[in-house]
Amino acid sequence: MNGMDFAGVHAPIPTPFDGGGALDLEKFKTLFPRWLKTPLAGFVVLGSTGEAVLVDEEESAAVIAAARDLVPRNRHFIVGTGRESTQAAVRAARGAAGLGADAVLVRTPGFFKPQMTTDALVRHYTTVADESPVPVLLYNFTAMTGVNLQADAVAVLSRHPNVIGVKESGGDVGQIADLVAATPREFQVLAGSAGTFLPALSVGVRGGILALACVLPEACCRLYVLARDGRSEEALNRQQQLLGIARLIGTKYGVPGLKAAMQIAGADAGMPRAPLKPVPEAVVQTLRGALAAFEEVVHESPA
Amino acid sequence: MNGMDFAGVHAPIPTPFDGGGALDLEKFKTLFPRWLKTPLAGFVVLGSTGEAVLVDEEESAAVIAAARDLVPRNRHFIVGTGRESTQAAVRAARGAAGLGADAVLVRTPGFFKPQMTTDALVRHYTTVADESPVPVLLYNFTAMTGVNLQADAVAVLSRHPNVIGVKESGGDVGQIADLVAATPREFQVLAGSAGTFLPALSVGVRGGILALACVLPEACCRLYVLARDGRSEEALNRQQQLLGIARLIGTKYGVPGLKAAMQIAGADAGMPRAPLKPVPEAVVQTLRGALAAFEEVVHESPA
Amino acid sequence: MNGMDFAGVHAPIPTPFDGGGALDLEKFKTLFPRWLKTPLAGFVVLGSTGEAVLVDEEESAAVIAAARDLVPRNRHFIVGTGRESTQAAVRAARGAAGLGADAVLVRTPGFFKPQMTTDALVRHYTTVADESPVPVLLYNFTAMTGVNLQADAVAVLSRHPNVIGVKESGGDVGQIADLVAATPREFQVLAGSAGTFLPALSVGVRGGILALACVLPEACCRLYVLARDGRSEEALNRQQQLLGIARLIGTKYGVPGLKAAMQIAGADAGMPRAPLKPVPEAVVQTLRGALAAFEEVVHESPA
Amino acid sequence: MNGMDFAGVHAPIPTPFDGGGALDLEKFKTLFPRWLKTPLAGFVVLGSTGEAVLVDEEESAAVIAAARDLVPRNRHFIVGTGRESTQAAVRAARGAAGLGADAVLVRTPGFFKPQMTTDALVRHYTTVADESPVPVLLYNFTAMTGVNLQADAVAVLSRHPNVIGVKESGGDVGQIADLVAATPREFQVLAGSAGTFLPALSVGVRGGILALACVLPEACCRLYVLARDGRSEEALNRQQQLLGIARLIGTKYGVPGLKAAMQIAGADAGMPRAPLKPVPEAVVQTLRGALAAFEEVVHESPA
Repeated sequence: MNGMDFAGVHAPIPTPFDGGGALDLEKFKTLFPRWLKTPLAGFVVLGSTGEAVLVDEEESAAVIAAARDLVPRNRHFIVGTGRESTQAAVRAARGAAGLGADAVLVRTPGFFKPQMTTDALVRHYTTVADESPVPVLLYNFTAMTGVNLQADAVAVLSRHPNVIGVKESGGDVGQIADLVAATPREFQVLAGSAGTFLPALSVGVRGGILALACVLPEACCRLYVLARDGRSEEALNRQQQLLGIARLIGTKYGVPGLKAAMQIAGADAGMPRAPLKPVPEAVVQTLRGALAAFEEVVHESPA
Repeated sequence: MNGMDFAGVHAPIPTPFDGGGALDLEKFKTLFPRWLKTPLAGFVVLGSTGEAVLVDEEESAAVIAAARDLVPRNRHFIVGTGRESTQAAVRAARGAAGLGADAVLVRTPGFFKPQMTTDALVRHYTTVADESPVPVLLYNFTAMTGVNLQADAVAVLSRHPNVIGVKESGGDVGQIADLVAATPREFQVLAGSAGTFLPALSVGVRGGILALACVLPEACCRLYVLARDGRSEEALNRQQQLLGIARLIGTKYGVPGLKAAMQIAGADAGMPRAPLKPVPEAVVQTLRGALAAFEEVVHESPA
Repeated sequence: MNGMDFAGVHAPIPTPFDGGGALDLEKFKTLFPRWLKTPLAGFVVLGSTGEAVLVDEEESAAVIAAARDLVPRNRHFIVGTGRESTQAAVRAARGAAGLGADAVLVRTPGFFKPQMTTDALVRHYTTVADESPVPVLLYNFTAMTGVNLQADAVAVLSRHPNVIGVKESGGDVGQIADLVAATPREFQVLAGSAGTFLPALSVGVRGGILALACVLPEACCRLYVLARDGRSEEALNRQQQLLGIARLIGTKYGVPGLKAAMQIAGADAGMPRAPLKPVPEAVVQTLRGALAAFEEVVHESPA
Repeated sequence: MNGMDFAGVHAPIPTPFDGGGALDLEKFKTLFPRWLKTPLAGFVVLGSTGEAVLVDEEESAAVIAAARDLVPRNRHFIVGTGRESTQAAVRAARGAAGLGADAVLVRTPGFFKPQMTTDALVRHYTTVADESPVPVLLYNFTAMTGVNLQADAVAVLSRHPNVIGVKESGGDVGQIADLVAATPREFQVLAGSAGTFLPALSVGVRGGILALACVLPEACCRLYVLARDGRSEEALNRQQQLLGIARLIGTKYGVPGLKAAMQIAGADAGMPRAPLKPVPEAVVQTLRGALAAFEEVVHESPA
């Protein structure tokens, strides 16, 4: 395990842009203080939630450097370094390691879908893991990439000494169960979907990297603890309370939804970059309602 | 709740055919004794697993009558009565009730997919529930029907006094969580997929109707009890042990796979009816291996 | 070819129901006179457009008998006899032949999707063709069945002496081209989608069975003739004129849309049967507008 | 039309890499002489076939510069400049124009699929078209991007003075017909799939950008001429002859298949870049067989 244990909840941080689409590192810095008061186990920058595909290489380096200064050593600092070509992915992993990443999170290539066979994915990740100076987390997000990294490939890759886990962002809990079953106990399967975090924990994931944790870090961490401690009924209640908001900032409204929800919660993560655009005012109201409902129910019956 | 509580595990019984494709009720009768020694909560006949779409109306009546004699009054006796037209579904529900069904399990119509809107499904089920002499369980099996009965429709239907629950056969545990969240506490959400039974229980399903329970009834019931009692680690182990076999007799080899697995386990459920055909010998070997592996691991560490 | 040549356009007739959902054979009879004044090459009853899955066996016999009296001997009389089980499909083909069908159109089984392999479909159709007293047309409608009968299976079946053609209802013209390429020249590939009739003709289909021909029989027949005679520019114009209406009564509004469009055009095909329901008034207006626009443009530039 | 007319067939050129994955511009240069002897109307570099997503910005500039020297002024020189972010797409269009591109071909963004609504795509392309110094061709390739640029968006964009056409790479000829119907006559709809080039021409596309044209430029150009001249039967024969090879180098084996087929045909386009890898020897044999069969049939009956 290289000494790293991803138990608990990690937050995948959005990348703030200003109204003109420029990277806004000042806003980025303001996001951390509140998170550092919570039991979040760590942070991911430049994941899907970080709009990584919309950020160029130079900007990426600036984001990583800024984040390295902000994440204390007792929390994980993970950098998304997936690229379409294997050599670009290697380059990005090296760059992130050079800037202080504890581990890299490597999204599957997704453009040449029919050619992304088990064999091709194993070769891609093997090369990246061979070359990366820091441990590699595999990363599957089929809804975005159209490629599905399945248990057979992950089983092979889990034997590579520099591959320490996998983040599965889909809500297919059966596939998550397959990942846990197909890999050694010390291999770390992480969930990426807050709406199915509890059932994913029930089949053995070690933790989660949850966009919702950017908005409601304590609630997500609490859900983790309740599940870990076998308090099934309370965990179920908490999962139910989070379900609505999780759906809204998940596939439905995506990163723009998350940024709007953070704004409502008092954390300014700026604007999304085009072609993404801010959610319309009606969605802001929906999000406001969902967050208010959550606060109310939690206040009444704090799980 | 009409006095019915579907907690626990139910077995959806296959319909035996002989080599010429004729209904084989003698074989059907031989299946019950072993099941009645287990804690199975009840039985479903003429569900998807019962090859209902391949059985004509007259044969259906014969199967129901035979089963009624075999299922004792202290276990649930549920009959699948889904039909494509609303009036045929009403007729089938009345027929099943007349033959002694405790409840009917009504699969969504599935042919005119684009027209099966929330509104159309609510109208269909409302008519069936209005007319059925016995309580109605909704039944969603998107992988077979191509239609998805979602939480919005189920929420409306859960307020009908004669609709007491829903069976969701898909492995999308997020959707199952939505169903639980969208319906009253006494409305019974049941899982239909053994490979995701534990995570479905973690989000609040009351029980399951699991094809795997035809082969391994005790193991499925045990998984239920472990989860209910909050013994998370043992439940996870049991779910993992069942995963491989659940996959094989699920979508992969379907009813022919289930019938072959039952044969291996000593229960002769006959042949599938054409266009289904028996699985090839290689698959029989695969199933035999999976069942042997399961027995071995259970023997070593009986969860 | 058994003397049958399906060149040209056939109309798949809807089955009229009254407001209470009962079969309305009187309305059925009123539909034919206008069609018999057109160059339609023949008729299909109890296809998808005929809501076959919503009609029981007794009603089916009544529809076939009524239609047999109405279709003159110099036009094809085709009966849809697809069923989920092979033996039911054989029974239906025999019944239709006994009632005077010239040929049967046999939709793929569609419930047990993962098991409907090439091999299973070839076995199903071979048995049906062996037993059917009249020639068999294969019928693929993936959007409704979720099963795809592809060129490899059709190539095998095209060698059966009692299989004379295939209707492909999908708009995937590449797949239609594959069917033409994979089968002998005398094997008749028919298109089922009016919106792609011209491109299907360009890759070699012999004719079409088009729901749109129930509403606009002359226009559809004209498109066929223009394409056959190599008048590409006029054919393209006509196809473009028909595109909008074809889309509306195709997958978008389906049989209820077709019945509404027929009503507007002066042909009363009754109501759809539940769970189908009449299209709302707004859709009636859309259809009315599309038909009026078509009449206008045709009047201005009669292709 | 800005004076540009994309009638006829264009070849989307693969980007050669050497065994170590480095850009091989020498090989690139050797590809042109044979193509310049054919009636190809023009060339695209850095499209999907050019593995654009695997090529970094510096390499892209080198490829464009090299190609600009090789493509004579009487053929179109089109550069693929699609990027995930709007500002990167603008930058790429400007860069390509500065290096001499006649037009840019701009693939839809594809990562944040649920957010790529009609509105978002219209905004993206409007910004790119506003800023691009050269005319813009829209580019839809749903099989690779998971995003579908449909007729409603294209209709709006077709009114932008700097948007001159659209390449639709899918085989859904109905959608292509919709594009032609929804846009002005001078707006140029181009097909991207050789297997459906003839039916696409029948519904009004002006030409094609066909990977197959890299291997069989004369045959593709001939198909275009036969269709244009209304020689339906010969065109159909030619389309049929090309179908098999088109399928093999299309989605099935993709760019690696195309590079192997070119090698067989005597044009060395190098290796694909990882994670793509050369097709296995068995596929090379399949391609060899398909090309030999094509040559034979053409020799016998030169359409």
